[in-house]
Amino acid sequence: MNIRGRACRTLWEAPGGDGLEVIDQRALPHRFVTTVLRTPEEVAIAIRDMVVRGAPLIGAVAGYGVDFAVRRAEDSEIDAALDRDGAMLEAARPTAVNLRWAVRFVIEAVKRASSPMEKRRAALDAARQIVNDELDRSRRMGEAGLAILREIAARKPASPVQVMTHCNAGWLAAVDYGTATAPMYAAFEAKLPLHVWVSETRPRNQGASLTAYELGEHGVPHTVAADNACGHLLQRGKVDVVIVGADRVAANGDTANKIGTYLKALAAKAAGVPFYVALPSSTIDWSLADGSGIPIEERSGDEVRFMEGLGKNGPERVLVTPEGSAACNPAFDVTPANLVTGFITEFGVVTPAELLEKVRGR
Amino acid sequence: MNIRGRACRTLWEAPGGDGLEVIDQRALPHRFVTTVLRTPEEVAIAIRDMVVRGAPLIGAVAGYGVDFAVRRAEDSEIDAALDRDGAMLEAARPTAVNLRWAVRFVIEAVKRASSPMEKRRAALDAARQIVNDELDRSRRMGEAGLAILREIAARKPASPVQVMTHCNAGWLAAVDYGTATAPMYAAFEAKLPLHVWVSETRPRNQGASLTAYELGEHGVPHTVAADNACGHLLQRGKVDVVIVGADRVAANGDTANKIGTYLKALAAKAAGVPFYVALPSSTIDWSLADGSGIPIEERSGDEVRFMEGLGKNGPERVLVTPEGSAACNPAFDVTPANLVTGFITEFGVVTPAELLEKVRGR
Repeated sequence: MNIRGRACRTLWEAPGGDGLEVIDQRALPHRFVTTVLRTPEEVAIAIRDMVVRGAPLIGAVAGYGVDFAVRRAEDSEIDAALDRDGAMLEAARPTAVNLRWAVRFVIEAVKRASSPMEKRRAALDAARQIVNDELDRSRRMGEAGLAILREIAARKPASPVQVMTHCNAGWLAAVDYGTATAPMYAAFEAKLPLHVWVSETRPRNQGASLTAYELGEHGVPHTVAADNACGHLLQRGKVDVVIVGADRVAANGDTANKIGTYLKALAAKAAGVPFYVALPSSTIDWSLADGSGIPIEERSGDEVRFMEGLGKNGPERVLVTPEGSAACNPAFDVTPANLVTGFITEFGVVTPAELLEKVRGR
Repeated sequence: MNIRGRACRTLWEAPGGDGLEVIDQRALPHRFVTTVLRTPEEVAIAIRDMVVRGAPLIGAVAGYGVDFAVRRAEDSEIDAALDRDGAMLEAARPTAVNLRWAVRFVIEAVKRASSPMEKRRAALDAARQIVNDELDRSRRMGEAGLAILREIAARKPASPVQVMTHCNAGWLAAVDYGTATAPMYAAFEAKLPLHVWVSETRPRNQGASLTAYELGEHGVPHTVAADNACGHLLQRGKVDVVIVGADRVAANGDTANKIGTYLKALAAKAAGVPFYVALPSSTIDWSLADGSGIPIEERSGDEVRFMEGLGKNGPERVLVTPEGSAACNPAFDVTPANLVTGFITEFGVVTPAELLEKVRGR
């Protein structure tokens, strides 16, 4: 999507072919900074320190990490390098399922190749394939979701389609297009009148910082709302559809996503507004019968007690609670399947049961 | 309630009797500062600049503003001073219903008196009566709510009663005890095991700053939660009862309160957790049949775009959205009466219909 009027992705092969250039997302929304990664160690640190974040993007960057491990190894050392550097890459963020999957995907491609030259080619091809598959899935989600937005637009030709989203399931979390944002960008490209309500997403503000930033840079009309305001906006008829991403979905459709998603889903249900979850089908954890088994990460209370932003003299962190008050910080919540209107996937808009059929039928 | 281990109110007559000392709430939670008001102008500015805030407290302070007007007037000028300074005080925050009521209450008391000396005595008596009536209402709400908390405690003797509240309907918004917090302080005094979940209350953070501060200073165990986390806490059984305040309640029980109240009410209903609104009966607007007629104040988007807190070098304001992103900022939302379990009032715990009977029966 566009940054300062020019098409951009979250990663691209650096000119000269010796590295991977990525947006340093820690500086957003106030500064646009990129950095070039050239070694498996640099990739692992970028993932660990959240230079790059978002499951699809982490996977894509990690694939290049394995490629870098192969590139620098002597011919006879390639397999040993895969094991050593692969383990290091996987450990960068231990709970990221997609990271582990991507690392193993490239490693297996390399191990299947026979000669050192073929192994080197297989590594780069596999890393590129992760990126291209990711792009393809985002485009398909965009098309599937566009149909929903077109239908709404047809019912209200005089005014823009009002979409609400939560957190950042945007192109900044992927390679391009994003998941929840893919239908919005598709609608924008199709010149559908559109306005997006962006929830702030306390405590880490991914909505206010990242989603508002990427929509704004691409020219998509949007308004930031405090998470508290989202119920009121839904109740008062200001929202036509809610589209969010997902971190993990159980087989029955119970959806774990960024904390606060559940409250938006409750308010959408109460207002009769459709609530969609956009996700690549790989996000569905078929091993979980329902959402009760999804572990909820409890993060540091300091993410609640402090707030980061741009102060008078640059980035600043301010304390918003009394010094002595504790804070709790569950990172995700579970939205019961009965609050979800449908899942926007690379296979179209489906219920979990329909998706299971499609995955099996492949 | 206690500050640094000593009993405190939000206002008290300054030693020497020539002024009213109040807590400057703008400095909380990071600094405790008081200021003495001695003229109607100083009272009006303190109200306008939110040195004091919260409907009950604004009314109590404004009563002294009229008293100060009477004190400094020549005997022959008292009635003229009432009109002039009364109008100035009422204009300090034009939408505060309680402010206008308090100013008129003292003016009428003065006008009923015949001699200048009686007028001077009537002014101070009326100002003091507002304070005492306010204290009495808070105590009664505390007793009424305590019965609810005792019942919960009896069902779970081994663990603390878990209360959730939103915004600051605390003693800092009143003279002492508060409205939503009155039952909590009553329970604490009765040595009921208690823990309070305090919602941050974006965008102005009255929960994270004021409620957490007053509970912490009084020694009440509490934990701050992002507003987004409140649905999850309710869903996972971490909350026994929700108690909030109200800004205006329609005759059918629809409740306007700080933005985000509605989402907590939805989540409480979904979890089967009782949701109570604590309020003096004067907060009920019998002229409104339901909540659809309650106007919702739209405040500056900068309250969402910026966040205030304690930085490295003192109070700081940081930008949390991109420079170019707009923000909406509705200050209140309306919780439908069917989500409210009951109203905790000075007449006990009642439905709106029951309250109407009691008010009429008086």
